[in-house]
Amino acid sequence: MGGDHAPAATIAGALLALQELAPEHSIQLVGRTEAIRAELDAQLAAAAPALRAQAHRVSMVEAAEVIEMTDKPSVAIRGKPKSSMAVGLRLQVDGDSDAFVSAGNTGAQMAASTFILRLHEGLNRPAIATLFPSARVPVVVLDSGANVDCSAEELVQFARLGAVYAEDILGRTTPSVALLSVGEEPEKGNAAVKDAHKALAAAGGINFIGNVEGRDLPMGTCDRGPVDVVVCDGFVGNVLLKFYEAVPKLIVGLITKSGVPKEQLSGALENLDYAAHGGAPLLGVKGVSIICHGKSSPEAIKNGILVGLRAASSRMSDHIGQRLASTASGATA
Amino acid sequence: MGGDHAPAATIAGALLALQELAPEHSIQLVGRTEAIRAELDAQLAAAAPALRAQAHRVSMVEAAEVIEMTDKPSVAIRGKPKSSMAVGLRLQVDGDSDAFVSAGNTGAQMAASTFILRLHEGLNRPAIATLFPSARVPVVVLDSGANVDCSAEELVQFARLGAVYAEDILGRTTPSVALLSVGEEPEKGNAAVKDAHKALAAAGGINFIGNVEGRDLPMGTCDRGPVDVVVCDGFVGNVLLKFYEAVPKLIVGLITKSGVPKEQLSGALENLDYAAHGGAPLLGVKGVSIICHGKSSPEAIKNGILVGLRAASSRMSDHIGQRLASTASGATA
Repeated sequence: MGGDHAPAATIAGALLALQELAPEHSIQLVGRTEAIRAELDAQLAAAAPALRAQAHRVSMVEAAEVIEMTDKPSVAIRGKPKSSMAVGLRLQVDGDSDAFVSAGNTGAQMAASTFILRLHEGLNRPAIATLFPSARVPVVVLDSGANVDCSAEELVQFARLGAVYAEDILGRTTPSVALLSVGEEPEKGNAAVKDAHKALAAAGGINFIGNVEGRDLPMGTCDRGPVDVVVCDGFVGNVLLKFYEAVPKLIVGLITKSGVPKEQLSGALENLDYAAHGGAPLLGVKGVSIICHGKSSPEAIKNGILVGLRAASSRMSDHIGQRLASTASGATA
Repeated sequence: MGGDHAPAATIAGALLALQELAPEHSIQLVGRTEAIRAELDAQLAAAAPALRAQAHRVSMVEAAEVIEMTDKPSVAIRGKPKSSMAVGLRLQVDGDSDAFVSAGNTGAQMAASTFILRLHEGLNRPAIATLFPSARVPVVVLDSGANVDCSAEELVQFARLGAVYAEDILGRTTPSVALLSVGEEPEKGNAAVKDAHKALAAAGGINFIGNVEGRDLPMGTCDRGPVDVVVCDGFVGNVLLKFYEAVPKLIVGLITKSGVPKEQLSGALENLDYAAHGGAPLLGVKGVSIICHGKSSPEAIKNGILVGLRAASSRMSDHIGQRLASTASGATA
């Protein structure tokens, strides 16, 4: 029920995903089943016969309440226990589902995911990981909005979360992890970043390559090589993310004004479309919770589902738990 | 003597500026006069006769020491009292100059400017203001790197500094000032931003329009209208600035790969060239100190000089002092 275009876009995305998922996978649509049924039937009626034949792999789970975009995060936990968010996440706890995807209220999804799925030991908070398109391959940026004030300890935790995400979801081997700062030197940065740098440099089990600057992000590399994961607090990550979304619009506007046909550009800039990279996993919770943009198109929802599947089938959450446990038992900075 | 291409680029920039300045303006080149003389003579010998006829408006001031890019900021104050930076700034205190422009070590320029020119009353620190190209007109972003950890009080001070800059240098009437955050609502943001929002909303003498998000910056507008000044801490501002510099490169690369001729693009993207907007003034010091990028081209140096002139002739520094004094005597939040 979440997102600006729900349930139509959500259902359309689910049907798109269904066509790419292996036969053993199925999709549960959680929400007001009456509204879902009507929309689902309408979309299936208009669908190709091959898709209609797969309709049995889509089921519905009743959730009477809806969390509004204006609801406070706490509403998801206490105020509306029968929301599609709470019901959908509880499916994982009960062993009836492997991943949860939503385009609803992000704050509520974070709160409900943390409350219902619980955090892995060794973590203070979960983090949202977003893929930033780059000239090389996409760069994992975290936190991109879950936590506006972060301690050095939390930045170090994000580094560990991001490394597992890059391995499991993106298939990167020994991903390089960098700290976003205002200079490459370890002594550059705000207080939290400087302390995090020290801790990461001393920490084991992570391929820490030092600080990167804003300019290294769109390139996906720095002078020490490729950058797979960039760690920052959620304030910086969120501002950057929204900024990055808007810059291509500006540039395309400038270029088309100069006479270059728009079609020629949109093809070239397809790679910058963050929707193509799917939803952003909330990392740190014991389970899979994929956060999609409120404005998600069906294509974006579909990709969110595929990310959720990759997270579940690669057992990313387990890996995070194991990694954190081995860190806690080993030497730490 | 400062900057990656000094003294050649600095002198070339000075000569470019000379051709745009009114006859009553003159330029002082501060540094090792022997090296400057040689370069200046070589450039004048190759210049047009009209420019050579203006050479008397360029003078030299001896400064035996040079601050290296790797020097600590404190070196500018204590270690090298005869650096071109210290000597050049002291000219203002002695009444022999109205503005100082440098492409040297930024940290050293900040420290030396603060130490020699002194801060206006009511300020804790100076801030660097940078112009971000936007779909509308350039947006003043500050602090863009002088201060990595900022209190709410300092963000409010930056708002006042930025407003005067927008009026005096950009000619904006009653410039709108916004706070960069992760949402429009006053309760969104990190601790410092939330407190700064409250203080700005209660403060007089400033056209505060509330929070803006990352996406509003490249547009130069938000849903409450045009955005002239955006306030953030120096960590966020610096990361954004460097990120913004790199994104167009990425996009042009993608587009030219798709077959659009590069020349067609560079014209369209000319507006995104931050060098076209000149150096970034260090705001808050009693005087004019313009910070240019270390990689400054002659064109960028020239623009830095023109900005320095506008700052001096509009009496921006005095206006900042007056504005701060009236704030201190009036009701404050």
